[in-house]
Amino acid sequence: MSDEIQLVPNDSLITNTPEEGRQLAVKMARLIIKITQPDAAIRERLRPIYAEDPAMLIAVGQTVATEFATIAAANNYWKK
Amino acid sequence: MSDEIQLVPNDSLITNTPEEGRQLAVKMARLIIKITQPDAAIRERLRPIYAEDPAMLIAVGQTVATEFATIAAANNYWKK
Amino acid sequence: MSDEIQLVPNDSLITNTPEEGRQLAVKMARLIIKITQPDAAIRERLRPIYAEDPAMLIAVGQTVATEFATIAAANNYWKK
Amino acid sequence: MSDEIQLVPNDSLITNTPEEGRQLAVKMARLIIKITQPDAAIRERLRPIYAEDPAMLIAVGQTVATEFATIAAANNYWKK
Amino acid sequence: MSDEIQLVPNDSLITNTPEEGRQLAVKMARLIIKITQPDAAIRERLRPIYAEDPAMLIAVGQTVATEFATIAAANNYWKK
Amino acid sequence: MSDEIQLVPNDSLITNTPEEGRQLAVKMARLIIKITQPDAAIRERLRPIYAEDPAMLIAVGQTVATEFATIAAANNYWKK
Repeated sequence: MSDEIQLVPNDSLITNTPEEGRQLAVKMARLIIKITQPDAAIRERLRPIYAEDPAMLIAVGQTVATEFATIAAANNYWKK
Repeated sequence: MSDEIQLVPNDSLITNTPEEGRQLAVKMARLIIKITQPDAAIRERLRPIYAEDPAMLIAVGQTVATEFATIAAANNYWKK
Repeated sequence: MSDEIQLVPNDSLITNTPEEGRQLAVKMARLIIKITQPDAAIRERLRPIYAEDPAMLIAVGQTVATEFATIAAANNYWKK
Repeated sequence: MSDEIQLVPNDSLITNTPEEGRQLAVKMARLIIKITQPDAAIRERLRPIYAEDPAMLIAVGQTVATEFATIAAANNYWKK
Repeated sequence: MSDEIQLVPNDSLITNTPEEGRQLAVKMARLIIKITQPDAAIRERLRPIYAEDPAMLIAVGQTVATEFATIAAANNYWKK
Repeated sequence: MSDEIQLVPNDSLITNTPEEGRQLAVKMARLIIKITQPDAAIRERLRPIYAEDPAMLIAVGQTVATEFATIAAANNYWKK
């Protein structure tokens, strides 16, 4: 684990819009993979494996959905 | 990752009805797959694999259920 | 995806009883499988596969549990 | 699917104690398996498979945990 | 299923500290495995299988996380 | 299981920032693996397996996301 990796970009869950919240969810999910496998070369080698495996693509979606649930709640669902 | 893909259609979690909320959940789940595998030809090739694999179909359902939970909460469950 | 499929029966998450809410959760989970695999003949062929596979049966249960959590919250847990 | 199967015992999520709530979670999880595979003989044949497979046992635990979350919320965590 | 097994130790989700809540989450997760596989000899045989399988270890973590979410909410996150 | 392992560092879910909350989520997820497999030599042997397996990396992300949801709620999403 590389403790130097920032796990929450800008150290905030608050975003202006749902779209930005969704992008944050994607980034936060990827950053966990990054600290678990800090070697960029290995991550690059793994990318085509999961990007062409439908079960893994669905699993990525599940993880992002879980991250997004937290971010959406933090932003009170961007209600005005 | 193609940053040009809109991840939240209309940039809003608010919908008029549960049915529309459910359709949004399906779309948002698919858009995560799209940014993870931006190549349309590969996605097209993967589609019959997961659409004929019962375990993957169930996993799709799990992901949509998680997305829908967030959308439903955002809409206060469409209570009047 | 067949956009003509109704994803939320009666377009409402509100039910009279927990039992009806549970049935709705089961239906909503199945409808996601239906839009992901709109071909009834293929779905019919897949049914005995997952219905005789304990891991898939458990996964069905996980999905229904997630759908039910949302429906139960929408109904304020059917408290009087 | 056998529509005659009662999916929520006593048609209520309310229990007197956490212990009873936990038992309800276990029952509700099993009832989903029952309606998905209504044939008792097949379920009996599948039981030793998942009961001796650690991955499936863990997955059963995940499903019960999700059901219990809903039941616990419905009971306001049995706070006095 | 052995109905004599207590599924919620002390029949309460309330603990003094997050640490105790976490221990309760671990115990509750294990007790579900215990009632699903009541034979102690079989459970003992399965233990090294999942304890040396990284995918299963991660899945154990997922289940404990779900149990802990409920316990933490029940304790209002141990806020003073 | 080694009961001497502290499962919640500092016995608190409260952190100053989202970043610290995220780090806590990662630590708490790892500590569950540690008590389930207390042998450090075995854990060390398993590490490269899951760190080079994309499906397992995604599963780690799912678990951390679930832990983080609880920690974020405990901190009221670090809203000021």
